[in-house]
This record gives sequence, structure tokens and C-alpha cells, in this order.
Amino acid sequence: MAIQAIIFDAYGTLFDVYSIAALAEKRFPGQGDALATLWRDKQIEYTRLRTMCSMYKPFWEVTQDALVFSCKKLGLALDFDAQHALMAQYAKLPPFPENLSVLEQLRVQGFKLAILSNGNPQMLEAVVKAAGLQATFQHLLSVDSVRKFKTAPEAYQLGTDMFGIPAKNILFVSSNCWDVCGAAWFGYTTFWVNRAGAPLEELGVAPHAEGRSLTDLLAFAALDRGAS
Amino acid sequence: MAIQAIIFDAYGTLFDVYSIAALAEKRFPGQGDALATLWRDKQIEYTRLRTMCSMYKPFWEVTQDALVFSCKKLGLALDFDAQHALMAQYAKLPPFPENLSVLEQLRVQGFKLAILSNGNPQMLEAVVKAAGLQATFQHLLSVDSVRKFKTAPEAYQLGTDMFGIPAKNILFVSSNCWDVCGAAWFGYTTFWVNRAGAPLEELGVAPHAEGRSLTDLLAFAALDRGAS
Repeated sequence: MAIQAIIFDAYGTLFDVYSIAALAEKRFPGQGDALATLWRDKQIEYTRLRTMCSMYKPFWEVTQDALVFSCKKLGLALDFDAQHALMAQYAKLPPFPENLSVLEQLRVQGFKLAILSNGNPQMLEAVVKAAGLQATFQHLLSVDSVRKFKTAPEAYQLGTDMFGIPAKNILFVSSNCWDVCGAAWFGYTTFWVNRAGAPLEELGVAPHAEGRSLTDLLAFAALDRGAS
Repeated sequence: MAIQAIIFDAYGTLFDVYSIAALAEKRFPGQGDALATLWRDKQIEYTRLRTMCSMYKPFWEVTQDALVFSCKKLGLALDFDAQHALMAQYAKLPPFPENLSVLEQLRVQGFKLAILSNGNPQMLEAVVKAAGLQATFQHLLSVDSVRKFKTAPEAYQLGTDMFGIPAKNILFVSSNCWDVCGAAWFGYTTFWVNRAGAPLEELGVAPHAEGRSLTDLLAFAALDRGAS
């Protein structure tokens, strides 16, 4: 396959978006999981509606809008303090435990690494810095420059443009199945980090490989190195 | 406002997509509501992903894909017979009880009426016929002709192109808040049939009016007639 570079999705893949449930639970006892889930669903829904209608707005603001809606929907009183605390937590979402070691091994093996995210540059830099990953990635690519969220092809094209490598020689890694499908449609070789053991989306397209955590990516990458 | 024509969304607005829960419950006891809800969510999600990636496929097929995924996700064994029965039900979803009378009154008042739907022509004609609404609408507009689902502007433009009337002089009616928002972004005057009493989506746009059933639309239309 001759994979030369690996591009990672950020939210959900490298950083645990549902970890926010613990803080949400403290603020709204009994509703933490419900809020974390609805918040994430709405955030993604809003990116798609805005992209289809050319009504782009930075992901940080979309995330805030989704939080406001979710609290209204669940009947939770979101005061300024709670909103500020939850958004502040979003700026420093923790990486999944295995990520740091896996990323370091991939880097040492000579793969070029990048992030391609819906997040706007400022929030992306903040979350990467909070995780101590500043030196890991050659590029932090944000859809902000094309003002279209994933799964718009223009968003995925940021990766091929930046590396100057054909999409099939780049491995696109995401835990979001819809993101993997969008990347596969675009032409990337794809790896689905299927943390929840979810069924594949019925979109007529499948990832090239799948694992349960980022650790499984190491075996896939080693296989490729062996073959090339 | 001088509303001259009224365009209705079909699924969820005129026809009750969640009515399928009763049949789903018979097939999968205890899971009817969960299946109806997930099925609908996935159906809409797939329309958006396919639209963003230019991977259009008729709504009937997308609906079937969403059913297959939803059953896998919920761990329900969807055999050929159950799939056939649920899809057959989708082809003849019942209209909400107030609809027939409201539509007839609007027609008598001289409004031009149309449907603008994600549904492909064949399924749209089937559901309209099953409800005895063949004579009610001047046009059944399907996004199939532009191969993009709502909320793509090209989909909404089918209405203005067909009537040859500016969007603001057409009332767009939907029970799906995201659909109302997309229509408002496009320029239509909009009415949200908020059957569930849901909060407004946080998209920076709002419907011109809102009601709890299609009956509330009569008062809004009468007001407009009085004003014009």
C-alpha cells in the first residue's frame, strides 16, 4: 500500500469528547451522559446543515450553539458559569490513554503525521497543547480555511494538498464511522478506530481496516511497512 | 406578506413517520419506539452525508439502508419478511389527522399547494395516493431531479422555479425544524409545525411563525389573506 503519511481526526479519535460527561454530571446530576451525547450529536448535525447551506461558522461557536440547544432540549438551566466551565473543558479534552505512545511509535517509524479536523485553528492548537502533542504532528489542518466541515470533499482535500501525496498513499484515521466513510469516498486509505464496536454505517463504502483502539493501528502500519 | 403559494414538507409534516413504531413494536417487542427513532435519525443523517459528498441515492434506498443499520445497531434480526413489511408501511404512512381538512380549506381559499420532499417521485406518489391527496397538490416536487437532499439550496429552489414566485411570497411549512431553518436561509417565509414542542435549533435563524399542528397554519394564512 505504501502509506507515507497518516492523518488523524481529532475530536472523538484522539481526544475523548464524551469525557465531558463527568463534568456535565457534576453540573447536572443524573443528566451527564444524556447531555454529552446530545451535545455531540447536535454539534455534528449543525456542521452538516451549515455546510450544505454555505452558512459556515467556526467549530468553537457551533459547539457552543449545540450546548445551548442541548440544555434547552433536556430542560437544564445553563447559566454563564456552567457554560463557561463546559466549554473550557472542551478546550482541553483529554487524549485517549493509548494515544501518546502509539503516536510516538508511528513518528519514530518515519510516518508523517497530521491532524485534519473540523475544529478551528485556535481550539485545535489549544487541545493539542493541553495533551502535550505539539511536537508530534507536522501539520494541524483545520477545515476553517475552506469554510466547509467534513464530510465535504474540500475538507478532505486539505490533507492531499498539504502532503502532495495521492490520497491512497495517505492513511486517514478516525473513530467516527461517517468520517471514515467520507474519507474513503474521497480516496484515502482508511482505518476506523471503532472504540464502541458499532456496526458499519450502511453507506456502500467501508474502511480498509478497523480496530478497537489506536493500538491496533500499529499492527496495520507495520504490515504496510513490511509490504513496501 | 402576500403569500401566494404554500409548500409542504412530506415526511414528518404531512405523513407521520413515527407511526411506524406500532408495526415495529409488533415485529420487535419492546423496541418499536427505539427503532422508529433511530431509523428516522439515520435516514436523515445519510441524506446529509450523501449530499455533502455528491453520493446521491434515491430516498427509498436511503430509507432501506437506514433501516438495515438501525436493526444492526439495536441487535434486531431483520429478516426479509420484516424488512418488506416495514418498508411497505413506509410507502403508505398515514397523514396526521388534521391534515386533510386543513389542506382542503387552504385549497378552497385559493392558495396554490405543493409538496417539496426528499422522497423520490415513486414513493412520494404512493404515499400521497394512499392518503387520498392526489387532487390536493398542484405539484409534487422531489429532490430527485437535482440529486441533492434538503437542506441543499438546489433542493429548495425547486419550489421557486416551479411557481415562478419569489421565495418570500411562498410559505414553506415543515415539522422538521432543520428543514424550516434551511428554507428560511434560502429565503422562504416559513411556518414550523412544532408538534413536539421542541426548542428552536440554535442556527441563528428562526421561522416566521410556529404552531403545534397544521390547524394553526389556518390562522396564520387567514391573517396573511386579511393583510394582502
